[in-house]
Amino acid sequence: MMQSDNIRVGIVGYGNVGCGVEKAVMQASDMELRAVFTRRDPNSLKIESAAKVMSISAASAMTDALDVLILCGGSATDLQEQGPYFASMFNIVDSFDNHAKIPEYLATIDQAAHNKTAIVSSGWDPGLFSMMRLLFGAVLPDGASYTFWGRGVSQGHSDAVRRITGVKHAVQYTIPIEDAINAVRSGVRPEFTTREKHLRECYVVAESGEDKSAIESEIKTMPNYFADYDTTVHFIDEDDFMANHGSKMPHGGMVMHGGNTGEHGHIMEFSLKLESNPEFTGSVLTAYARAAVRLSRERQYGAKTVFDVPLTYLSEKDRADLIKELL
Amino acid sequence: MMQSDNIRVGIVGYGNVGCGVEKAVMQASDMELRAVFTRRDPNSLKIESAAKVMSISAASAMTDALDVLILCGGSATDLQEQGPYFASMFNIVDSFDNHAKIPEYLATIDQAAHNKTAIVSSGWDPGLFSMMRLLFGAVLPDGASYTFWGRGVSQGHSDAVRRITGVKHAVQYTIPIEDAINAVRSGVRPEFTTREKHLRECYVVAESGEDKSAIESEIKTMPNYFADYDTTVHFIDEDDFMANHGSKMPHGGMVMHGGNTGEHGHIMEFSLKLESNPEFTGSVLTAYARAAVRLSRERQYGAKTVFDVPLTYLSEKDRADLIKELL
Repeated sequence: MMQSDNIRVGIVGYGNVGCGVEKAVMQASDMELRAVFTRRDPNSLKIESAAKVMSISAASAMTDALDVLILCGGSATDLQEQGPYFASMFNIVDSFDNHAKIPEYLATIDQAAHNKTAIVSSGWDPGLFSMMRLLFGAVLPDGASYTFWGRGVSQGHSDAVRRITGVKHAVQYTIPIEDAINAVRSGVRPEFTTREKHLRECYVVAESGEDKSAIESEIKTMPNYFADYDTTVHFIDEDDFMANHGSKMPHGGMVMHGGNTGEHGHIMEFSLKLESNPEFTGSVLTAYARAAVRLSRERQYGAKTVFDVPLTYLSEKDRADLIKELL
Repeated sequence: MMQSDNIRVGIVGYGNVGCGVEKAVMQASDMELRAVFTRRDPNSLKIESAAKVMSISAASAMTDALDVLILCGGSATDLQEQGPYFASMFNIVDSFDNHAKIPEYLATIDQAAHNKTAIVSSGWDPGLFSMMRLLFGAVLPDGASYTFWGRGVSQGHSDAVRRITGVKHAVQYTIPIEDAINAVRSGVRPEFTTREKHLRECYVVAESGEDKSAIESEIKTMPNYFADYDTTVHFIDEDDFMANHGSKMPHGGMVMHGGNTGEHGHIMEFSLKLESNPEFTGSVLTAYARAAVRLSRERQYGAKTVFDVPLTYLSEKDRADLIKELL
């Protein structure tokens, strides 16, 4: 569908999330992917769609050709720089996920986006999970919310294991503890230690000749990442790793809330079970890219979050159809 | 907390939902319940809070004394009349739940509410469940949504059984079929007949001397209500009924969505398990009453739905705190 009012999208950064966004934009009948911007040599990049691949430095000349940029870089360094830079020129959406730094990042983007709309920290956590925490607490303020992640791969924890000397490959799965979930469902509003909510499970390929017990000990005692958890370490061979842990990126989790109205207890739950974390994240970003463009067309400028955007803005369908079909 | 900027609330109709709203408003530190309006003799009504009980005809003189009215009447007749009447004078919230008639009702309210804000069809279905259907479909448009209700009491079906000659008391539980839920979770996007999604279970007290098999047959063959379902009928004595089925109003249900991004499948779920359906509904209405007042203060007038209201408007907490604590 090439219609003149279609939303013209650019992607910045073609990693796993960027590929996920590309798939999602291709599924959207009201959007067209026009350009993928990369720091790599554009000629070296093969992409799935027919969009142009361009150097990231070429983006600033395309402000009239694109309605929104979806920033798919990482929060650690990429977005700190790219967010304000692009927000001054384009409507943007990103998945900035350093929870502690979100207020500061949001303020910086808000300064930059004075004639543009930016939706920051979209995705599923922060993102959909945050929305549920807000909604659940607003409906049942006499209550407690719990977030569980997994079973899924934590990139940060996998990276931490890979940095250990003697580790060739590693992946770390975060696993919610069933007893903790059941305790919340029972309505008692339990208080958990870190160890009681999640397990950590590592699959490691050691370099030949390395002391596996030393590696295991270094993992299990690593502060912040593992020391506060019950951690299991499995040493496997490279073939097993590549076949079963090499490329899959499943994830998921749930937000639960137990609350009371007088004597009566209620449980609210939201859960995700994702075969591909980056593709799902890309789908959420794409829905919020639609919202950013619509907000911008209404001159609702500045930095927004998922808390600020009415749900109607996310859907391809118009409001009257949504009300008729879904309300 | 009696602060000058607190939201001053009136309740119209003091049935089960009205009582639930009263409890929720009493829990909210930013709200005060000022009045309960009833069609009954105000002197005959005992309420839990210290609010005034007044005749419904006295409401129109209190437009300056109340920031929002929460309409707790039924959709069949009450709201059709009360909705437009009060929306012309007050900010209002209601739980109009006749799905097929929502667009027409919304248009009528929108006409009436030209200097006021009305949020119609709030609650959990329509309401929270509708929001999830929209959100899930917007994020994963290549997918299918499923709504299951129960286990819980359906008032409409209970009433239908009670209308049968020879039935003294009756309650009907709607029960989602576990196999259907598991089929959705498997990611296959099943298509269900009505019979495959829900069971109906009736507990009936028959008048003495009545033909139970005739009653059972009349229930099971009743068009629209039971004929398309597998229905179980249990005849019990009055003591058992009063002890176990007389006053409890548990309910709940779930919205599920299975969708794909390319080759990868994802499952999104939202579920509620409620010990008191009317109290939970009252809590949702109360959160949306807060939103209606805030929208009105920003001169965002007219008829809105849960699809139109940003989540920040629902919470007692301010936006900066929500972002810091929950995003």
